Amino acid sequence: MQKRYTNDFFIRRGMKVRDIMEEFSKAGFSARALGEALEVYHKMLQDKGCVKILSIAGALVPAGMRNVFLEAINNKLIDIIVITGANLTHDLIESFGIRHEQGDAEADDVELAKKNINRIYDIYLPNKGYLVLEDKLQEILKKLPQKTFSPNKFLRELGKHVKDRRSIIRACFKNKVEIFCPSITDSILGFQVWMYSQDHKLQVNPQLDTRDFLDLVWKNKKYGLIILGGGVPKNFVNIMMQVSGKSLNYAIQITTDRPEYGGLSGAQLKEAKSWKKVAANALTADVVCDATIAFPLLVASLI
Amino acid sequence: MQKRYTNDFFIRRGMKVRDIMEEFSKAGFSARALGEALEVYHKMLQDKGCVKILSIAGALVPAGMRNVFLEAINNKLIDIIVITGANLTHDLIESFGIRHEQGDAEADDVELAKKNINRIYDIYLPNKGYLVLEDKLQEILKKLPQKTFSPNKFLRELGKHVKDRRSIIRACFKNKVEIFCPSITDSILGFQVWMYSQDHKLQVNPQLDTRDFLDLVWKNKKYGLIILGGGVPKNFVNIMMQVSGKSLNYAIQITTDRPEYGGLSGAQLKEAKSWKKVAANALTADVVCDATIAFPLLVASLI
Amino acid sequence: MQKRYTNDFFIRRGMKVRDIMEEFSKAGFSARALGEALEVYHKMLQDKGCVKILSIAGALVPAGMRNVFLEAINNKLIDIIVITGANLTHDLIESFGIRHEQGDAEADDVELAKKNINRIYDIYLPNKGYLVLEDKLQEILKKLPQKTFSPNKFLRELGKHVKDRRSIIRACFKNKVEIFCPSITDSILGFQVWMYSQDHKLQVNPQLDTRDFLDLVWKNKKYGLIILGGGVPKNFVNIMMQVSGKSLNYAIQITTDRPEYGGLSGAQLKEAKSWKKVAANALTADVVCDATIAFPLLVASLI
Amino acid sequence: MQKRYTNDFFIRRGMKVRDIMEEFSKAGFSARALGEALEVYHKMLQDKGCVKILSIAGALVPAGMRNVFLEAINNKLIDIIVITGANLTHDLIESFGIRHEQGDAEADDVELAKKNINRIYDIYLPNKGYLVLEDKLQEILKKLPQKTFSPNKFLRELGKHVKDRRSIIRACFKNKVEIFCPSITDSILGFQVWMYSQDHKLQVNPQLDTRDFLDLVWKNKKYGLIILGGGVPKNFVNIMMQVSGKSLNYAIQITTDRPEYGGLSGAQLKEAKSWKKVAANALTADVVCDATIAFPLLVASLI
Repeated sequence: MQKRYTNDFFIRRGMKVRDIMEEFSKAGFSARALGEALEVYHKMLQDKGCVKILSIAGALVPAGMRNVFLEAINNKLIDIIVITGANLTHDLIESFGIRHEQGDAEADDVELAKKNINRIYDIYLPNKGYLVLEDKLQEILKKLPQKTFSPNKFLRELGKHVKDRRSIIRACFKNKVEIFCPSITDSILGFQVWMYSQDHKLQVNPQLDTRDFLDLVWKNKKYGLIILGGGVPKNFVNIMMQVSGKSLNYAIQITTDRPEYGGLSGAQLKEAKSWKKVAANALTADVVCDATIAFPLLVASLI
Repeated sequence: MQKRYTNDFFIRRGMKVRDIMEEFSKAGFSARALGEALEVYHKMLQDKGCVKILSIAGALVPAGMRNVFLEAINNKLIDIIVITGANLTHDLIESFGIRHEQGDAEADDVELAKKNINRIYDIYLPNKGYLVLEDKLQEILKKLPQKTFSPNKFLRELGKHVKDRRSIIRACFKNKVEIFCPSITDSILGFQVWMYSQDHKLQVNPQLDTRDFLDLVWKNKKYGLIILGGGVPKNFVNIMMQVSGKSLNYAIQITTDRPEYGGLSGAQLKEAKSWKKVAANALTADVVCDATIAFPLLVASLI
Repeated sequence: MQKRYTNDFFIRRGMKVRDIMEEFSKAGFSARALGEALEVYHKMLQDKGCVKILSIAGALVPAGMRNVFLEAINNKLIDIIVITGANLTHDLIESFGIRHEQGDAEADDVELAKKNINRIYDIYLPNKGYLVLEDKLQEILKKLPQKTFSPNKFLRELGKHVKDRRSIIRACFKNKVEIFCPSITDSILGFQVWMYSQDHKLQVNPQLDTRDFLDLVWKNKKYGLIILGGGVPKNFVNIMMQVSGKSLNYAIQITTDRPEYGGLSGAQLKEAKSWKKVAANALTADVVCDATIAFPLLVASLI
Repeated sequence: MQKRYTNDFFIRRGMKVRDIMEEFSKAGFSARALGEALEVYHKMLQDKGCVKILSIAGALVPAGMRNVFLEAINNKLIDIIVITGANLTHDLIESFGIRHEQGDAEADDVELAKKNINRIYDIYLPNKGYLVLEDKLQEILKKLPQKTFSPNKFLRELGKHVKDRRSIIRACFKNKVEIFCPSITDSILGFQVWMYSQDHKLQVNPQLDTRDFLDLVWKNKKYGLIILGGGVPKNFVNIMMQVSGKSLNYAIQITTDRPEYGGLSGAQLKEAKSWKKVAANALTADVVCDATIAFPLLVASLI
């Protein structure tokens, strides 16, 4: 293999995002990992038979990553999204007109509580968002088929009724990108559905996402995964690989958790090779960086 | 308030765990936070009306924390456990005789895969564990009432049929400690139940943990939470507080995630005050330390 | 103040680095911090009376950041550099023709040792680099004035004798950017100088950097600091502020250390306000990100 | 090798620190690493020819670790200390009667500045400490031999004049533990010495610590290092090994930095094997934990 010298890394005036990302792959440390993630993603996109899965955890919609997800969806960078219920809840709140604002990470939280402002690190969300969500969502739920859904099928139905063109849920429906939310119970969206289901036939059972995910990917031959932040979305895709005897052929992990504490979110991709969840010869990149920086840089380089 | 000088922190020959933990509260940085966590826990235990909840995420059962959880259960340090499906899966695998061994975090994962050894950082689990789990669990499932359960009620039933005296699931049943697992879908335990439910009436619906949790805590006046590692278990308890208009009066967080990346697992306890999930005047301690060190030290100081 | 909504953050096809950096400032979490760092840097550059100091710790020259530092120097983004001896050592090794190569972070270190390859995370440096350094440096040292230098004055002299146009040491000399290295003892460069000084009059005394730094900045009115990674370079600038009764008016910190462990490298910029090392009304940005990603993005946006 | 099962880890009522530390070595993740650090330390102590070096970085004296260092010194757990100037500065401030107090990590730093309180994360130090330090130190400096010292020899002289029985500097002198401080320039102690040396013959030259360290260890056959937090103290010992062709036979690292960012403080011990700074067959333990928790637990287990 030809040697690559780290100090052949250059920056230039007026450089494009894609250019600096390609330069990063010549450097060392996290810059290199990020540059290599772009290389892995490129190869994944060129591999026509490969189903591309994006797992999303962390408060990325509150942080403003919604339009980045939209670009990824609209530009066919992904086929399947596995996401937390919280991100979907915040997507809906935005769709219903209550917006996440930049706030102060050092604010007095007791004072914020008095003003009914919920803080997510350096972001504020007026608590009113949850009241509006309840109103609008309960209205929509009445219009849906009154039966038992998987989160996946429920979100597809929901997508038909969300008007906001910037909604991730709507965009997935429109672009035939499948969304899964196996831990929907752990969210206000899941709670609202449970409330509604108390006296209606509409039910959501997260267990059914297993069925729908396996049905969807069963016939595929190759799999690629982009992991943002770990959590249930990462683990669920891994478990689906385990139980179906499949392996990921491409994997990019963008997380700031570290391996030594042993949690799944911080586990390096190579560890998953021992489980055969990641193929022995898979192309992988472990990027230790906040997804709010790394993922937009990746998507901006690919669209 | 009387001043406390950090260099009044002393260690002595033959010191007990409890003694050094009390000394820690005189120091600074993480040592102080850990010492203060013990103080908060003491007050929580003295507050007779307070329901004590333990949320468990991360691979703590593989890491050997099973007996620590047992001591916490047997010594009435907790009333409710909210846990990931993975930890329950590993509890069952241990109960069925396949054990987690110390391994090498630097091992060649492709070689491990050939030997059917699954690696969890520096721990090995023979893949056989999953085969034994399937056999034993499918047998037990046949003996259970064939109906739709919440994870909570399902785990209680399961607890009746686990023989191993060191099982957390069994210990909870025996000691009337309620377990919740709202993201059971995201685990091999959840998958096995889904498999069984394909052609049986026994079903588990994670959404029903919301009902059972709210039923259980509705009448309580005071709440305390010990968070190990974040994830769905932490978030679920927080959401239950949010939707029921309750607040935590005591909270101890042991996590290594950091707040700046904005994820819920790294969010400081004070942030939850803006949401009123944590009471304005709650006693809290944020400990930045691996739970495998901090939690045993806490429990050993309290039993 | 006008509200900024995080989801007004957009990415576009063919975006320039500067554009995405400006967009980042609309988002939350680390993306926002990085975007705001650019805003602070812009204002610092517009403030004509402000002396701009860059502190460099961590193996940034091995990681390929040499050309980024050169661009910063050549484009007048900085007036003073405070740096570790290790980075200067690696700058000289590159200048003397031995290059840092991309390597494998998972390599067998005992095998590398047999091949005389020194590993710096995912970078390899042939041990030969140190032999060449010794030869070339001892030659140069003979040509320098044989007297006692501060590291600052020593490095200026050294810069005159380094031929390589990509050398940071040379570029500082050529561009009248002052370099300080108060912990030069803790480096092979420092060791080589000490060796030479055993039987020559040329001596370097790090204590004299205090004198030279104070002489240089004494008359300035405003100060800005960009901190890469912490360590002695960060602390030294802070101490110089403390002892001269000055304060930083602008400060950007790019570090991955966290505050809870109490070390200076992880201390937030606001902490330095209690010490008056940072002015009460200073413009600051704390960016939690690997400098190999964040600093090139900043410099590429400013040149 | 006999298998060790992680869930053979037990805690018991009234457990001693040493007992739980021994139990930790049966578990996984950081608990195991900490338990194994104790095993490595035990072996190092039994190896009579081994010189035991402790490197100290981070604000450990402010955090209250002074008495822990004293116990380590008094109980012959170490032969050599390499330390930052800041820790020595704070040791002297305590010795001169100004104490570090527990404070509030969330305090308003501008308000603290008005009260002349310097904050170090959750610790307060009255700024008066620096005034008292100046007075007392300038007095002592007059009594010392007026010549050029290495930091090592200077600190030995200083130790003779510090009255406080709890001073680390004094304890080292009394117990013949050698202290090195190669980056003394980067501290208020170093600054005070520089001030004094402006019109006196007493000088300190940090370069001379290289001479004294090499003189001291040259004849030894075996070396052990306990690293608290990285920084110059860690790097200096490593460089001394490199230039003298020696290798560490035992190494324990207690740090929270991570390897992926490439800085020396976060570098794993195995990386140093490629440099031959750590022997190929050395006994090592990498503990990812705040030293304020891990080091007192170690020392309390060993005295």
